[in-house]
Amino acid sequence: MTDQTIPGALMRAEVAEQPERWLDLAAAGVADAARLVREHGVDAVTFAARGTSDHAAVYGQYLVQTQLRIPAHLATPSMATLYQQDVTSPSTLVVALSQSGRSPDLVETVRSARRSGCPTLAITNDPSSPLATGADVHVPIRAGAERSVAATKSYTGELLALYLWVQELLGTPRDVVAARVAEVARAGRDLHERAQAWARRVALELWDTDRALVLGRGYGLATAREAALKLTETCGVAASGWSAADAKHGPLAQVMAGTPVFCLRGATVGRESVEALMPDVRARDARLWSTWAASEAGGDTGPDDFTLPSGVPDELVPLLEIIPFQLLALELSLARGLDPDRPRGLTKVTLTS
Amino acid sequence: MTDQTIPGALMRAEVAEQPERWLDLAAAGVADAARLVREHGVDAVTFAARGTSDHAAVYGQYLVQTQLRIPAHLATPSMATLYQQDVTSPSTLVVALSQSGRSPDLVETVRSARRSGCPTLAITNDPSSPLATGADVHVPIRAGAERSVAATKSYTGELLALYLWVQELLGTPRDVVAARVAEVARAGRDLHERAQAWARRVALELWDTDRALVLGRGYGLATAREAALKLTETCGVAASGWSAADAKHGPLAQVMAGTPVFCLRGATVGRESVEALMPDVRARDARLWSTWAASEAGGDTGPDDFTLPSGVPDELVPLLEIIPFQLLALELSLARGLDPDRPRGLTKVTLTS
Repeated sequence: MTDQTIPGALMRAEVAEQPERWLDLAAAGVADAARLVREHGVDAVTFAARGTSDHAAVYGQYLVQTQLRIPAHLATPSMATLYQQDVTSPSTLVVALSQSGRSPDLVETVRSARRSGCPTLAITNDPSSPLATGADVHVPIRAGAERSVAATKSYTGELLALYLWVQELLGTPRDVVAARVAEVARAGRDLHERAQAWARRVALELWDTDRALVLGRGYGLATAREAALKLTETCGVAASGWSAADAKHGPLAQVMAGTPVFCLRGATVGRESVEALMPDVRARDARLWSTWAASEAGGDTGPDDFTLPSGVPDELVPLLEIIPFQLLALELSLARGLDPDRPRGLTKVTLTS
Repeated sequence: MTDQTIPGALMRAEVAEQPERWLDLAAAGVADAARLVREHGVDAVTFAARGTSDHAAVYGQYLVQTQLRIPAHLATPSMATLYQQDVTSPSTLVVALSQSGRSPDLVETVRSARRSGCPTLAITNDPSSPLATGADVHVPIRAGAERSVAATKSYTGELLALYLWVQELLGTPRDVVAARVAEVARAGRDLHERAQAWARRVALELWDTDRALVLGRGYGLATAREAALKLTETCGVAASGWSAADAKHGPLAQVMAGTPVFCLRGATVGRESVEALMPDVRARDARLWSTWAASEAGGDTGPDDFTLPSGVPDELVPLLEIIPFQLLALELSLARGLDPDRPRGLTKVTLTS
């Protein structure tokens, strides 16, 4: 039993247990979600989510487009709540992602989609939530109770639920998928201790930073945004995550001498785009860290870069690449005398309509 | 002739001339763009853009969905460039927005869309650009040469081009549209001096700030993101723009005592959502400014809030609401001894593929 009186104890335990929760979810499978798509002749997917789950939606957007080769987009929930317009085409699957399943604007977005005749899928951590019961099909992410305000295991649970769903649709044999997940879970356990040591070292260097940038591309974009949000919500850092393609359109201007910049190079596609920014970042005398995959011969790495295992498919890299940043947010928060489990003024369930 | 040797002279002139450029664009019209939609039986719109133009795309997303009542989304240009997948359905109109018309990933996105059989529309400031010549129809925003790196008149030109296009599709009589644009142009001219005075006052208070938040909802979201980007690119402020619905999911944690927070309340829809955050912002001892519309009786306003004219339709508010922030970016940049026309390390045309 985790001692909740120790600051960060919940987040620490929830980060650490992620690989076990992935195995639970893979064992349970997501067959119903795949059936829903097959029965409806879906030709597009729209994701509706907020906060951390919105970053899982970004991941889903890349996954659906690259693997299923159909368009995938992010919803604007205010259409359903503020403008009261049902705008989704009936052949679009609406996927709502939410840890709690209680966000009123997502519940309303699913209702709006159903009025338009769209099939709807909810991916949540609570089968009794209004989102879970209000959608045609619910996939529970089986992350167990998440009690830290900073979402961690529910985020990677959402990523994995999306991955399993897409594999099911692609007809990938279940034993093949199970073996891949087992491999990633093993890699997640193996890198945990190194990630913790890395996070402590980097946190010491960042203890007084006011800002940070995280740059990614393709699958790395979801990780960039989620890593930045973790640093903001647990530490108050003005952190932002950007596509490497957007960074030169202005965001890089906030990189000053000493500004921490994290470059995500874990996935193969998009890596060059991120690496193309590194000279600009260095020219600003930023402090640069990056993630990279061990298989890469040579490459532009520094002694403080975080090495991911080699050979992980791009689609599964986001499950691993976020871990060092979850731990960095935790360690930096503690180094600042804060409690990442209970950031001031934030609550676990956000009831925005 | 603007004296380019004076820091910010270009940006100052380009901000000031916006109302005249709107009148030019409205006089020229966008009939071809409407014909394209009618001929193709379009049932969805996808916008492709980067940087400032991506904020015009966010505006377009709300405009198309609320006015035309069809789904509208933002593209992931890396599908065309990095993943080499043509994922857009043939009944989707792809609208590419770019001041220069030279962004290689947008040119590639339009090529990909055409391979998928989609009608394509480019909205740029250069009829000879590859994007303009590569799309089925090009709408020139007629902003004249924009020479400051910080985009201003091209942004509101893109907003207005989208507005005119949607009005044409709705069949709004052209004299009615012309009268509305004339009204907004008059309002833009009228508020300019007040906006400049406001910007100078606020810039004095912000001269050493490291961060800022801009909060909007609905049509205000585009303005929030664009205002934040202006502050970042011209002043190096770690500024970010958020939907009021997302802010409580973490971003608000970066609001400390004294952090400047701007609440956008110019449009009627979404105003309550923004106002619901103001007690949280005040509880963090932030410095809060907001925009609001003069017609509102009472309301939660302070002496330093910026008042917009009353009675402007929500769809046209973004043209006016961005002006005080363009001027704030200009004045703050000058107050910091920088030149907003030439931010360090940024270029006018960004050639990201």
